[in-house]
Amino acid sequence: MSQHYIGYRCSICKKEFMPASILYTCPSCGGNLDIEMDYKAIRSMYQVEDITSRTDYSLWRYLPLLPVEDPGGVGTPLRAAGWTPLYSPPALAKALGLNKFWMKDEGRNPTGSFKDRASSVVVARAREIGAEIVVTASTGNAGAALAGMSAAIGQKAIIFAPKTAPQAKIAQLLVYGAKVILVDGNYDSAFDLTIEAANEFGWYCRNTGYNPFTAEGKKTAALEIWEQICLNLPNDSRPLNVFVSVGDGNIISGIHKGFKDLLALGWLKTMPRIFGIQSDKSAAVANAYFAGNETIIPISARTIADSISVDLPRDGVRAVRAAVETSGAYITVSDEEIIAGIAEIGKYGIFAEPAGSTAFVGLKKALATKVITAEDPVVVINTGNGLKDVRAAMMSVHEAPVIEPTMASLKKFLEKNK
Amino acid sequence: MSQHYIGYRCSICKKEFMPASILYTCPSCGGNLDIEMDYKAIRSMYQVEDITSRTDYSLWRYLPLLPVEDPGGVGTPLRAAGWTPLYSPPALAKALGLNKFWMKDEGRNPTGSFKDRASSVVVARAREIGAEIVVTASTGNAGAALAGMSAAIGQKAIIFAPKTAPQAKIAQLLVYGAKVILVDGNYDSAFDLTIEAANEFGWYCRNTGYNPFTAEGKKTAALEIWEQICLNLPNDSRPLNVFVSVGDGNIISGIHKGFKDLLALGWLKTMPRIFGIQSDKSAAVANAYFAGNETIIPISARTIADSISVDLPRDGVRAVRAAVETSGAYITVSDEEIIAGIAEIGKYGIFAEPAGSTAFVGLKKALATKVITAEDPVVVINTGNGLKDVRAAMMSVHEAPVIEPTMASLKKFLEKNK
Repeated sequence: MSQHYIGYRCSICKKEFMPASILYTCPSCGGNLDIEMDYKAIRSMYQVEDITSRTDYSLWRYLPLLPVEDPGGVGTPLRAAGWTPLYSPPALAKALGLNKFWMKDEGRNPTGSFKDRASSVVVARAREIGAEIVVTASTGNAGAALAGMSAAIGQKAIIFAPKTAPQAKIAQLLVYGAKVILVDGNYDSAFDLTIEAANEFGWYCRNTGYNPFTAEGKKTAALEIWEQICLNLPNDSRPLNVFVSVGDGNIISGIHKGFKDLLALGWLKTMPRIFGIQSDKSAAVANAYFAGNETIIPISARTIADSISVDLPRDGVRAVRAAVETSGAYITVSDEEIIAGIAEIGKYGIFAEPAGSTAFVGLKKALATKVITAEDPVVVINTGNGLKDVRAAMMSVHEAPVIEPTMASLKKFLEKNK
Repeated sequence: MSQHYIGYRCSICKKEFMPASILYTCPSCGGNLDIEMDYKAIRSMYQVEDITSRTDYSLWRYLPLLPVEDPGGVGTPLRAAGWTPLYSPPALAKALGLNKFWMKDEGRNPTGSFKDRASSVVVARAREIGAEIVVTASTGNAGAALAGMSAAIGQKAIIFAPKTAPQAKIAQLLVYGAKVILVDGNYDSAFDLTIEAANEFGWYCRNTGYNPFTAEGKKTAALEIWEQICLNLPNDSRPLNVFVSVGDGNIISGIHKGFKDLLALGWLKTMPRIFGIQSDKSAAVANAYFAGNETIIPISARTIADSISVDLPRDGVRAVRAAVETSGAYITVSDEEIIAGIAEIGKYGIFAEPAGSTAFVGLKKALATKVITAEDPVVVINTGNGLKDVRAAMMSVHEAPVIEPTMASLKKFLEKNK
């Protein structure tokens, strides 16, 4: 256990719990637990340069700010998670009318999504508490990330998925050698069974929005954005604006946590504004934000962006706060906009999953409504690789024409399509 | 044009041609052209440390050894190609019985395959010669790479593909905004039409094994292996053994070229041994190697590993030489072994396309026949991301069981599957 990890604190009732306890949601009120770090101790031991001068180009460069010890696994994909590239295609910035624009490509993580961050830190925690098995409910990215990061260091993993999950996504879990059990029910029934099984068999449960360590892994994206962008902004810069899609709410709350840690350390001067983008077909968190409260009312989600299609966001309250407390906002977009966004980003060489496009089209809406203007620095997070959802990609483009393999046919075609 | 690029030289008839000419295969005999660099000039301007101390973690750190100028595109995926991670999972090395084992994961390139290396350098060349359009024939990785790297810097690209190519692969090309034209024929007819069209319309042709600059891009993998491995091997080490799958032969000849450049510069002491692995259902190059000559006889290829399924390898002669001249060898493996290999590598957290698994199972065969023994340092190249071919991945694993979402069903299942 990291010496700087000092305990859990409930985000709702504020009760505190000992760091060594194996806890998920608050035993008292059911709220999401925050991980508490000893910022004073970290500050006395490290300066910004001690972090930024590290030559470990992965999320593990931030080990001093994480609640886990070094998990080992040197030379494996576990140690290659994070430190994703930050693209800034000049032509795209110009098309958007922004002077400072970046896209952080989480699709280049080892298993192809943002979720590798959460899973690597949870696997490190599992090692520390001597968990024989880590289990999660997932229909996609989170399961692949747990399976991949577990495989990297020989940790046993079990994934519960609804039997309706796409076979292609199940294949990735199986290739990584995880035990996959399909349940004849929906994601929520898989989620509940996972928790029951974890309790009964002593398995360690990774469920998103339930295990407090997932947000700690996800906060590393904020730490990277700080190092890659914030530290390089001029002193008189407007605050950075972070656009991220929201499903169960755990990525946005993890990012918020990362920036809060940095503020507490005095290493970040201005809190970035965080914008949560949801599909209007899966807007439970946005609904609460628009209603001006923290009451998450379950919906029947059915967006094309499957990694953010969530009936009951398990980290909804903290997700609302991420926008409210940073003077950000929630924005909803249509599935049509999400699909079109894939091809729009693709034209600059970045292949995004629908949830990544969601954040991008949210930015476009913010620009159209002047919530964001030319001088605002903006980073959009592409949460996953477009190869994860080729079906959605195909919807974003027109079919290719077919010709005979002769110059005559080609010339005829080119003539017609001048 | 790079000042160190001094011309073309035919790999067959040895004729030389001026660097500014826009050439593909040898105008005199049809052989593949090698790019000639001025090693003396490079050596007088650079020392090893001038390269290894660069902070550009992409293939562009090797710009002084490339025949192109800086193509620009800073902040785009073009500048993020290469410098792929080198995994060395201790458990996998142990399972293989090797003391020094690495896997280079090319699946983590921007468009998910090795081909980004070739396409970025070709796009750089296209810029220099002022080509309005770059064109290629492709059924998969090469086309995606050209489409993605072109999109990154606003270069127009046209891809000709057989109309039987998987729709999913076509979708990636279209998302990157390339003009895709499907031809009612096979890859070879698309290949020929591409060349004809390039000649007629003045398009710049990227076709693999035809354009001499593709191998120059591909050689950067050898430069990285040199920097990541060779420079760190002890002085008395046995030579490094490089395992790579072979289709049209251009990757293996590009890797060979990279090591030859380094030898010529005096920066590499011992030439690594290069092993080319082919499916026994697509073994035109291996056939020539086994026959002890350089005569490439076309076959009717039908391996599951689609990126190395090639009837007529366009870079076959140099591909044979890569093994012969380095005391390597060719090895053929079955499609069953290739499929099984995907799940075997996956268990260590690395998701490979079938062509990546091919190189891995080739190594296993080399170990079984004692061609490679415990003390030989080995690097296996995974040429592409497993997400590129989910159908093959599904063939490598057993189907997942389905249960009712209740503890009773789960317990019954676990009891039965102890």
